[in-house]
Amino acid sequence: MIIVIRPHSPPDKVEEVIREITQLGYNASPIRGEYQTVVAAIGDETTRASLESLTALPQVERVLRVQKRYKLASRESQPDGTVIDAGGVKIGGDNFVLMAGPCSVESEEQLLATARAVKAAGATILRGGAYKPRTSPYEFQGLGPEGLRLLETARAETGLRIITEVLGENDVDLVAATADILQIGARNAQNFQLLIACARSGKPVLLKRGMSMRIEEWLLAAEYLLAHGNPNVILCERGIRTFENYTRNTLDLSAVAVAKQETHLPVIVDPSQGCGRADLVKILCRGAAAVGADGLIVEVHPHPAEALSDGQQQLDPDAFRELVAGLRPFVSAAGRVL
Amino acid sequence: MIIVIRPHSPPDKVEEVIREITQLGYNASPIRGEYQTVVAAIGDETTRASLESLTALPQVERVLRVQKRYKLASRESQPDGTVIDAGGVKIGGDNFVLMAGPCSVESEEQLLATARAVKAAGATILRGGAYKPRTSPYEFQGLGPEGLRLLETARAETGLRIITEVLGENDVDLVAATADILQIGARNAQNFQLLIACARSGKPVLLKRGMSMRIEEWLLAAEYLLAHGNPNVILCERGIRTFENYTRNTLDLSAVAVAKQETHLPVIVDPSQGCGRADLVKILCRGAAAVGADGLIVEVHPHPAEALSDGQQQLDPDAFRELVAGLRPFVSAAGRVL
Amino acid sequence: MIIVIRPHSPPDKVEEVIREITQLGYNASPIRGEYQTVVAAIGDETTRASLESLTALPQVERVLRVQKRYKLASRESQPDGTVIDAGGVKIGGDNFVLMAGPCSVESEEQLLATARAVKAAGATILRGGAYKPRTSPYEFQGLGPEGLRLLETARAETGLRIITEVLGENDVDLVAATADILQIGARNAQNFQLLIACARSGKPVLLKRGMSMRIEEWLLAAEYLLAHGNPNVILCERGIRTFENYTRNTLDLSAVAVAKQETHLPVIVDPSQGCGRADLVKILCRGAAAVGADGLIVEVHPHPAEALSDGQQQLDPDAFRELVAGLRPFVSAAGRVL
Amino acid sequence: MIIVIRPHSPPDKVEEVIREITQLGYNASPIRGEYQTVVAAIGDETTRASLESLTALPQVERVLRVQKRYKLASRESQPDGTVIDAGGVKIGGDNFVLMAGPCSVESEEQLLATARAVKAAGATILRGGAYKPRTSPYEFQGLGPEGLRLLETARAETGLRIITEVLGENDVDLVAATADILQIGARNAQNFQLLIACARSGKPVLLKRGMSMRIEEWLLAAEYLLAHGNPNVILCERGIRTFENYTRNTLDLSAVAVAKQETHLPVIVDPSQGCGRADLVKILCRGAAAVGADGLIVEVHPHPAEALSDGQQQLDPDAFRELVAGLRPFVSAAGRVL
Repeated sequence: MIIVIRPHSPPDKVEEVIREITQLGYNASPIRGEYQTVVAAIGDETTRASLESLTALPQVERVLRVQKRYKLASRESQPDGTVIDAGGVKIGGDNFVLMAGPCSVESEEQLLATARAVKAAGATILRGGAYKPRTSPYEFQGLGPEGLRLLETARAETGLRIITEVLGENDVDLVAATADILQIGARNAQNFQLLIACARSGKPVLLKRGMSMRIEEWLLAAEYLLAHGNPNVILCERGIRTFENYTRNTLDLSAVAVAKQETHLPVIVDPSQGCGRADLVKILCRGAAAVGADGLIVEVHPHPAEALSDGQQQLDPDAFRELVAGLRPFVSAAGRVL
Repeated sequence: MIIVIRPHSPPDKVEEVIREITQLGYNASPIRGEYQTVVAAIGDETTRASLESLTALPQVERVLRVQKRYKLASRESQPDGTVIDAGGVKIGGDNFVLMAGPCSVESEEQLLATARAVKAAGATILRGGAYKPRTSPYEFQGLGPEGLRLLETARAETGLRIITEVLGENDVDLVAATADILQIGARNAQNFQLLIACARSGKPVLLKRGMSMRIEEWLLAAEYLLAHGNPNVILCERGIRTFENYTRNTLDLSAVAVAKQETHLPVIVDPSQGCGRADLVKILCRGAAAVGADGLIVEVHPHPAEALSDGQQQLDPDAFRELVAGLRPFVSAAGRVL
Repeated sequence: MIIVIRPHSPPDKVEEVIREITQLGYNASPIRGEYQTVVAAIGDETTRASLESLTALPQVERVLRVQKRYKLASRESQPDGTVIDAGGVKIGGDNFVLMAGPCSVESEEQLLATARAVKAAGATILRGGAYKPRTSPYEFQGLGPEGLRLLETARAETGLRIITEVLGENDVDLVAATADILQIGARNAQNFQLLIACARSGKPVLLKRGMSMRIEEWLLAAEYLLAHGNPNVILCERGIRTFENYTRNTLDLSAVAVAKQETHLPVIVDPSQGCGRADLVKILCRGAAAVGADGLIVEVHPHPAEALSDGQQQLDPDAFRELVAGLRPFVSAAGRVL
Repeated sequence: MIIVIRPHSPPDKVEEVIREITQLGYNASPIRGEYQTVVAAIGDETTRASLESLTALPQVERVLRVQKRYKLASRESQPDGTVIDAGGVKIGGDNFVLMAGPCSVESEEQLLATARAVKAAGATILRGGAYKPRTSPYEFQGLGPEGLRLLETARAETGLRIITEVLGENDVDLVAATADILQIGARNAQNFQLLIACARSGKPVLLKRGMSMRIEEWLLAAEYLLAHGNPNVILCERGIRTFENYTRNTLDLSAVAVAKQETHLPVIVDPSQGCGRADLVKILCRGAAAVGADGLIVEVHPHPAEALSDGQQQLDPDAFRELVAGLRPFVSAAGRVL
């Protein structure tokens, strides 16, 4: 780390900083500039205490980290991209995976109709929420275990693999018994107890980026999963919160490119949450493929206007079919196979 | 709700919207303007399905909610401010409460020294994290149960009441056995399973605002606690995430004023997290008192530069004593008693 | 507009609102709901006073606009996309235009080397700043008139058309004498005096989105240009400011899709400013083409490490050539001609 | 500056960086860490080229600035606070100044009624816009020169000093002939040509913080004014743009504290723009006084519901009188004189 000393600090104040650095396990190397002094603290930052607390000293102006804070997630630790096997479906590598299905599992009829339609259009993984994190306690909270049972029925009938969200530590075992991929939602992206519980399940985990998470924090949340023993981590960009209000979130496609560069993990894009508007989903899927995403997760519902959650961002089966048809040239241009 | 129809939509498309509105349990009242039609959907929005899904219809441009989404938390439902009893300490009403203590519980010596100092300066509640949500899995994660034991020791010796964070559903019982107030951190502010578990504990709960939570969402998270049977909810503003980087977060003091107006719940301010810089804490405490906060939660550590977490925003005991002295005239000006 | 009356307001308070609405030139149509009353104010919102001032009345909770605020810029006012002729280069329609060149014009050698290279790679328009808006007064502010002269030399030699930024009203005539397209930068996107002066020049104008501009505000700034008589407006998305710091800005590719849907104006993407990192530019160009952009403006410099401004986001000529080669399949997939 | 070299870079790549640093006028001092190398570039960063362009080299991971970028604005350059004389009214020092008046000058009757009322309540400076920057070209744009004439009338009658906004370079002389203080609005805060023109006028200038301006950028805009010869600069915090929508902007009171610490310039708060809601203005004025602001600028209108601009955030004269009465204890607590 680099410790920036305030201008005009007397030598004994610099010495005090050097002593603290040394005591915290680093080697201190001061550099006296024309205008102010900086002290380089040499040592592995990921295994030693952070020196940011030194800004508590009045003579310390700032502390700048040098090293990246994630290790297992980093591209350096593993130059080749990870390919994850989710019940036989490969995520990563040359594959471009399509996950699709309703926001919430509402009924057997709704789920099966959707499952058949998305399979016919090219999806290999069925999404559907049995447990729904809702902003208001008065909104539909999901069918729970009955929803999981319906997802199993849909898998049995269509052969699609299942991704579904898990909301709480105590539900991990139950949800993992059904799901091929556990989904951790944006609101839980720094629910570290849930991350640890999902890591222990051994199932592939799709980790959504939190609404106001910096990329570094997202990768550190992935690092929790990796460090607790689960190598099967899929990142999912789903939009960040900004001031813009024509879209519900601002889909950050640059973050996909950054994540592909910084890590070896597959990166999926959720354009439905990412913009919150059905009319933009098709075009954003193309953007996602173009920037190097490894696949998509798209909300599809037989009758969006009557959906029990987020109807405004769900496509009907016809629109989804058309989306996939229009997407293929972009997937090919990106050198991927759909 | 108000459904805005796109200009030039033919009458049968308006009729389709009216049918959907009626089917979803509202009475539809169309208003034909010069330029475009809107349909008012009359009915209690908090007990019926949201009509936002109607934007899935191509002729619907937007759906505007009319009603507030929170009920139990609203000032209308209870015009008088709630006063909460936390082990004998009153929060709300004319009282201005001071909660103070270390970011993390690190040792008996560290905790007791801090507890004695903050009590002497005027605090009545001791804060200290036994379970720490840390961005990186390689950072200090708290002492856990041993930390709780130390908090009990500090209470026994000083008489201070205890507030401490709970990270997971499964820890609620254990933490509630020690704590006088359960703290839900910003990263867990929409961890609804944790909210429900804390509600059931019956203990007072301090709910921090999430990093990118709109005030409405924060009050709806409080509504989860209230709706699940716990009336002892304290709101805590702790800064939101913005583009500004001279401060770690942007403390939103307007949100305190809004929350006091919209709800009957006490509102506390956390200036330490709110700015992430020890040198601004004193002045922001004054601002918090001036805008009508019911109290403060301030990080204090015997030796901030060597703190195991967030040393940069912790005050030493002398600075805290000075802070309280300088704060008193502002608390008096606000008509409160410290 | 829709005026939401606070719950429990007595009838005379509703009447007062109706009187104010009527006086401000609208017809008022009250709708009494189960829980609260709303009043629809019927009349063209773009030619009458805004009713938002009515929230100054204590019984008014909120005022919701119904109509879009832009007219000339709207897709409704002109369903076919505008195609702009910039000195013979078409922008819009099926064309996918490449604008490229250095951030700043630094010397004849630098500019001509870049111009030749970007032309060879496929660009038809040369960018280069003669007047530079710099955050600090101590940074290089551009060559001014000498820079314009060099741009003319480059046009004469290569046949490339010229786009260059204009910073102040008083420079419009001078810059317009050289430029084929005037560029209005992000910091000036709501400098209305400059917008009006550029409108009057009659030259095509490329309007960058401001750093924290909502799409609506961006289109209203375009409306200034259109309403002051200049139909040749090109929109340019260049990233918005968010909390993310791995990229300098967050390129909002959804905004491109929204702008294409809402307006008839061509939309260009600036990936160089959009992410501030040379290593992401190539991939973001693909994303831009995929979401329907009408072209790109890319920073290219012979020796980026020694550039006088923004070297970190400039590509060298080889990288630009590679960028264009890799981009072609995506432009084709989007049905465009490069 | 500190140049962070990517891990595993070979020595000749580090040498290349050192050569570039040297060529750009700095002395290079490499520090080899356990994991990666950093190179300190020693030399005054404010007078040399930025090294951020070095990230164009593939072996450079990041460049970290060490020095602050503003000089004349810094507290170091002038430890004592600047006190500005605006036609006899002192801004800064122990004074707490009240500026108040309508958003727009609408008529003689409106302006004089407001002027008399705000003077009676304690204001010493009258605000009122003659030139209005409006988001839409169809909104009221101000009375222009006639508005200036009315402001002169109000000064002649009441003795209040005048602050009014200037929108364009070409209006500076005209506006400066009337105004005691020139106001630069948020949308023009990085309109550098306007800053330079205002600097040359010699009049005191109130510089609003731009909607998405970091504090550093705001102080650098002030540095433009100072570096172009005008020492009479007043900073004005008026809220930043965030995701929150219960308030129009998020008033950043921490920024006031930071600006007071970093610079010697007086800092004023605009709570009217800062929250966009009349009902919060009173309480935010108290917060502003508490965090050390040097004064306030508040919008007051005889009949806010009928104001031609921003009625929702304007107070009527009674509310303003009450505001000032309630504010006095906070101003006293802050050690200031109102």
